[in-house]
Amino acid sequence: MRQSHLFTKTRKEAPKDEVSKNAELLIRAGYIHKEMAGVYSFLPLGLRVVNKIADIVRKEMNANGASELLLTTLQDKNVWEKSGRWSDDVVDNWFKTKLKNDTEVGLGFTHEEELTALMKEYVRSWRDLPVHVYQVQTKFRNEARAKSGIMRGREFLMKDLYSFSKDQTEHDGFYEKMKVAYKNIYAKVGIGDRTYLTYASGGTFSKYSHEFQTVTDAGEDVIFVCEKCKVAVNNEIRADVPACPVCTNADLVEKKAVEVGNIFSLGTKYADAFELSFASEDESTKQVIMGSYGIGITRLMGTIVEALSDENGIVWPEGVAPYVVHLILVPDKNGVVKNYANEIYNELVEKGIEVLYDDRDVRAGEKFADADLIGIPFRAVISEKTMQEAVIEVKNRKTGEVKKLREQEFIDSV
Amino acid sequence: MRQSHLFTKTRKEAPKDEVSKNAELLIRAGYIHKEMAGVYSFLPLGLRVVNKIADIVRKEMNANGASELLLTTLQDKNVWEKSGRWSDDVVDNWFKTKLKNDTEVGLGFTHEEELTALMKEYVRSWRDLPVHVYQVQTKFRNEARAKSGIMRGREFLMKDLYSFSKDQTEHDGFYEKMKVAYKNIYAKVGIGDRTYLTYASGGTFSKYSHEFQTVTDAGEDVIFVCEKCKVAVNNEIRADVPACPVCTNADLVEKKAVEVGNIFSLGTKYADAFELSFASEDESTKQVIMGSYGIGITRLMGTIVEALSDENGIVWPEGVAPYVVHLILVPDKNGVVKNYANEIYNELVEKGIEVLYDDRDVRAGEKFADADLIGIPFRAVISEKTMQEAVIEVKNRKTGEVKKLREQEFIDSV
Repeated sequence: MRQSHLFTKTRKEAPKDEVSKNAELLIRAGYIHKEMAGVYSFLPLGLRVVNKIADIVRKEMNANGASELLLTTLQDKNVWEKSGRWSDDVVDNWFKTKLKNDTEVGLGFTHEEELTALMKEYVRSWRDLPVHVYQVQTKFRNEARAKSGIMRGREFLMKDLYSFSKDQTEHDGFYEKMKVAYKNIYAKVGIGDRTYLTYASGGTFSKYSHEFQTVTDAGEDVIFVCEKCKVAVNNEIRADVPACPVCTNADLVEKKAVEVGNIFSLGTKYADAFELSFASEDESTKQVIMGSYGIGITRLMGTIVEALSDENGIVWPEGVAPYVVHLILVPDKNGVVKNYANEIYNELVEKGIEVLYDDRDVRAGEKFADADLIGIPFRAVISEKTMQEAVIEVKNRKTGEVKKLREQEFIDSV
Repeated sequence: MRQSHLFTKTRKEAPKDEVSKNAELLIRAGYIHKEMAGVYSFLPLGLRVVNKIADIVRKEMNANGASELLLTTLQDKNVWEKSGRWSDDVVDNWFKTKLKNDTEVGLGFTHEEELTALMKEYVRSWRDLPVHVYQVQTKFRNEARAKSGIMRGREFLMKDLYSFSKDQTEHDGFYEKMKVAYKNIYAKVGIGDRTYLTYASGGTFSKYSHEFQTVTDAGEDVIFVCEKCKVAVNNEIRADVPACPVCTNADLVEKKAVEVGNIFSLGTKYADAFELSFASEDESTKQVIMGSYGIGITRLMGTIVEALSDENGIVWPEGVAPYVVHLILVPDKNGVVKNYANEIYNELVEKGIEVLYDDRDVRAGEKFADADLIGIPFRAVISEKTMQEAVIEVKNRKTGEVKKLREQEFIDSV
């Protein structure tokens, strides 16, 4: 992508009412645009990051045999009344609207109800189970305060997977697989080292649920980390669980963190509400056992920015960066450098390397500052000076390390 | 995909309140699920078709230099009041809801307003133009009646592109490019031969707008086709345009059709409302000239079903089919046929061929009927009989033609 063709520009300042670091940096760098508090558009650079995160998540879900589908935003009141979650007294962040005939409908904030009702039409026998389905879908939550940028939106993208199992053993097996899948995801998006499997409050059907919490000062949650086991306990169950649930170590370290995912055993809560039962192998009728498994895609993007940015801007891990290489042209007067940079750009594009090419007619210092703010992993500078030395100057955004590489070395390295 | 792992099943009948052929077939075959009138979930098979159509559309948009972004569903009243389109008297299909603090917000049915307001922050000079951006995004329209299945949803997926140009010549050039891109799209999704560039009413800024209309009995529109030029005139301007606008032939044929896309010159309508101006090369201040270019992705899917299905079910064109091959196992008693079919399935998967493998434990007749209903282009049967003949029996869903192919011939052919 030629930067001259990108309509976005970097900005010195974010909107005055923007108080979160993630949104401030993402707005300034041209990744997102603020429409209202908690409501952000994703501009071309931002959508690339969203898609990369979503695709990492999809791969892990597919690898565990789950199928992708797409449920609806508009929600039927009759369906939600079955579980008792239509009432605003029970769920305090519904958005509701009306059809022309005055029928009330809701905007989906989660999809257990719609999906359980749907599964009633397909699940009859033990042969139909297990079912594992997920979606990457926009959720709506009417947050009273939305001050955490894209970490807590009123409209946000979420991956939600639902499991339907014939017995507790089958459920538990998949639940454990999801723990592994989630760990893989956080490693791939570049925050594995600071993301902890965290024990949190369960429900009627399980002692604990499990969250994944990423340590950052912007976190709204408090967790207690066992450095030895790399697991944590959420403050909400600290009174009941004073020591590490794995090794019983009581020397836990308090940290602020953001919940970037959760997995939850639902037991027969929804199967009971919707009478989702099946004929088991022994011909008795049994209730389906469910689980739900969420990852906020855009929240995860915001968390990566919070956790990894520095004083100069965003620092994207390679797996989620909008481009891998930020090629910077510092032109000379006679066009020789520009011609060479164009050649290198075309070669990278041909080789399928994702490159943002700063071919703009602006000062070198401005290009360098923009590159730091945008945060692409490798900045490659081509200037009169680098051409004289017959090298390309490659800076690692994360470490700051600068290498002078021959053309072929450079291309091989990226 | 093994069909035994697909949670959906075919159904003999669609819900009783479903009156449209497209939704009836798509529900019976397990592509979609009806949540409410005009509100459908997309099940795994259905989502595959949606994604294929969307990717065909994306490729054509990208090939014309457009960038993808993702705007929001929640819409700011203040922004829409600038164009006068907030009022329910002006726009009769708004869904509206409220934030916790009682601020009214709308659900986006189109995005000219939000995007024009956004562009004010990025467009300053003629150097910033043109800009071509698009999204594939869920739209909400509060239709009083929603009886056309996924051809007219209250919630539906749409590709909407917006162009921002510095003068009429630049605008016209892109507008003509979009005509070509749209034609390419309809050809690639398999309805090029029955889809007509149709002259329709323009606005303040252009004599005509252009629609693309696909001929089918389920159409809500009436068009008059010039068979010679392969263009049409929408009934709405028939009084003013009695003859073919290209060749002046007055012998036009009346047909029922569905609008599957439209391109529209907006002139300075939105630039005026939002004061979207720029410093031109001659240093004067000028208004940006806009265009909008829509394709309903899910409507297009419904139209393909309406136009191409037969008495046995859906007939997908290859470009949008959920899978290319429907491999049908008709097992023998000793498992030899099953082993061979498994081998063929694995080989197809390894070669990257998209195959749905009917490995279910049901009668052959039921499998064949399901295959016809689901409508995958090539049905490949492996049975005791085909193994005796050392062939695979391949049926073309569209033509009904049956070929007996040697294993290697079959694999080479798909």
